[in-house]
Amino acid sequence: MAKVAVLGYGTIGAGVVKVLEGNAEAIEKRAKERIEVKRILDLRDFPDDPHGHMVTHNFDDIAGDEEIDVVVECMGGIEPAYHFVKASLLAGKSVVTSNKELVAKRGAELISIAADKKSNFLFGASVGGGIPIIRPILACLSADVLYSIKGILNGTTNFMLSAMEERGWTFERALKKAQDLGYAERNPEADVEGFDACRKIAILTSLALEHQVDFEDVETEGISSITTEDIRYALKLHRTIRLLAISIMKDGKNYAMVSPFMIDETSPLASVRDVFNAILVHGNMSDDIMFYGKGAGSLPTASAVCADVVDCVRSKGHHKEIPWNPQKAELSDNGGFARKFFVRLENEVTEEEISQAFGQVDYVDLEDEDLVEKAFVTGIMTEKDFKAAVAKTGRLINRIRLD
Amino acid sequence: MAKVAVLGYGTIGAGVVKVLEGNAEAIEKRAKERIEVKRILDLRDFPDDPHGHMVTHNFDDIAGDEEIDVVVECMGGIEPAYHFVKASLLAGKSVVTSNKELVAKRGAELISIAADKKSNFLFGASVGGGIPIIRPILACLSADVLYSIKGILNGTTNFMLSAMEERGWTFERALKKAQDLGYAERNPEADVEGFDACRKIAILTSLALEHQVDFEDVETEGISSITTEDIRYALKLHRTIRLLAISIMKDGKNYAMVSPFMIDETSPLASVRDVFNAILVHGNMSDDIMFYGKGAGSLPTASAVCADVVDCVRSKGHHKEIPWNPQKAELSDNGGFARKFFVRLENEVTEEEISQAFGQVDYVDLEDEDLVEKAFVTGIMTEKDFKAAVAKTGRLINRIRLD
Repeated sequence: MAKVAVLGYGTIGAGVVKVLEGNAEAIEKRAKERIEVKRILDLRDFPDDPHGHMVTHNFDDIAGDEEIDVVVECMGGIEPAYHFVKASLLAGKSVVTSNKELVAKRGAELISIAADKKSNFLFGASVGGGIPIIRPILACLSADVLYSIKGILNGTTNFMLSAMEERGWTFERALKKAQDLGYAERNPEADVEGFDACRKIAILTSLALEHQVDFEDVETEGISSITTEDIRYALKLHRTIRLLAISIMKDGKNYAMVSPFMIDETSPLASVRDVFNAILVHGNMSDDIMFYGKGAGSLPTASAVCADVVDCVRSKGHHKEIPWNPQKAELSDNGGFARKFFVRLENEVTEEEISQAFGQVDYVDLEDEDLVEKAFVTGIMTEKDFKAAVAKTGRLINRIRLD
Repeated sequence: MAKVAVLGYGTIGAGVVKVLEGNAEAIEKRAKERIEVKRILDLRDFPDDPHGHMVTHNFDDIAGDEEIDVVVECMGGIEPAYHFVKASLLAGKSVVTSNKELVAKRGAELISIAADKKSNFLFGASVGGGIPIIRPILACLSADVLYSIKGILNGTTNFMLSAMEERGWTFERALKKAQDLGYAERNPEADVEGFDACRKIAILTSLALEHQVDFEDVETEGISSITTEDIRYALKLHRTIRLLAISIMKDGKNYAMVSPFMIDETSPLASVRDVFNAILVHGNMSDDIMFYGKGAGSLPTASAVCADVVDCVRSKGHHKEIPWNPQKAELSDNGGFARKFFVRLENEVTEEEISQAFGQVDYVDLEDEDLVEKAFVTGIMTEKDFKAAVAKTGRLINRIRLD
């Protein structure tokens, strides 16, 4: 019998308890042992909950309980999660977490403590919720050299962009609906400004490079500048706008970025709608591989957490190596990365000025009398040259990267 | 240093050598040991190949070589592959294979020999080529109870159906092109009649049920009856036709089938075009998860084979359990499974006869004067009731299942 403690009895924590109990039989068969929740840490009391008697407000009840083998951390945020996770590992317990902030910031350190203690620190649910992505990158692509990772890693913004495209909603209306449905927080900054996706791509890039990538180093742009006009231009170009978190490993350089992109309608990422997430990985041998599923939500995320719990129980006393060196990997300056750009300029800029600044471009026209402006797609140019060209013409309405 | 022998120097076998050499450094880092090919078994000689000197025609050179830790089987077919794999396992070596026939037929037995010998028999590349699917089912979904697996598991037929839809080609023209491009064999039966997909879904179902599922028990229908008219009807219904291999685990019953299906254009499987494969898995907690990628091809498949080789080297002396009991799982009679059907009948059948036989149906009309027939979608009915209804009206032109 293996005993588990759950830190934080919110959406994910409650899901973990539900999965461990609801699928107890199947889980026992796979873990070769019964797995039971023994303690739940939360600031609140839950007198009407059938698990109310397990709740404690005192972390020492968990750290000091030798019966507890695995601690599941679902509190989110750095503190006190970091303190509790570290103490649990130092007490010889394995830890499973869905906390992307914690993993992005302290993953390397926590893995190395687990290695010392011959226990495990697993975080499969920290990226992509219920989608298996971290384990496949570590295990199934172990014979590949990864060239790129491109992910739709935030369900809220994908819901909003899908709704703007499919229902013609404005950004504000889509955000309001996402909040009403409980996808977006009242303060939606973490989703809308790309901060959530940024932490996730920092984790994936760290695993790909096997060295620490700080999320603060990842250039991050959200979707708040995207308008219904941009969406209409995208459709006209047989493209769709998605917030992508990308990581490119090319010619010895490593680029990472979170930004809205216009992607071709035939890309497998283009069909990822609503709150779904997807991660497209390109290896030098495997070619394109995509993982798709619910990137959030109580049960899908809890299912991924519990698969890690099963793994911890199965490999008790044996540390599963995760190569993530705390030494920092340097990201290259995105200025050197070349791609096409979609651009909208005020109508006063002449075609001559445009070709002088951007070189040859392909104009696109929505044939809308109310929209008097110049819109075009550039050739392939570096971010640096592109910025210089925009500075030259001025009068920018918006610009979106192409992928 | 770990030494590998490759059985069969064809497309996949040559790919394996290329991946192990091309990515040698990355692979060494992950396996914690250099991995080198020592021997290649083939009936042919390869005097002009840089690996020609490794080639042997005598399997004993491999079985009897204690230096060889891992045998990679890429011969295909049951014999002599089965004999060689079994002998390699009995000699204490680990075996990796991409051979779906062998795994479907002898998987359970070969796993149990590996368990006895504390070695490993891994077959990640036998389903879905380079797409990681077997490991995620075993490891990442270990806290889930699977309800269904639906896969596009054959790239050749998916290429053909995509070409028929996107370019308006006939079945014959699509087949010819698939053969010209080297996707389909001169004798294309294994692809076109669904036999290839059938073996793959038998493997996935065995893993999901943890008991042997014989591929002979899986009802299998190919795509040779699909015409351009069917494709046009599908488009009109906002659907697309795909050859699906499905496995449904519902109310204690297990249904498995390979058949063309009309799937809704919003399904994630609908956007899987060309030679790509995808597997959509639905767990009771994880919801829909899809894995997408190149289901065939030398390097993608070899990449998956080599990831298994890395795993064998890493876990030397330690058997990784794969729950697959040789005792047979009984599949339920598909007659009891209920779904909608798309039906085309000769025009002589009256609407009254149709409603008497099928109940209420939704008619669909291509508005094509040259196509005088009756086409409709039924309500949800069991396969058994559907067959009875068709027998009642007679004059069937074609029928396609809906999913």
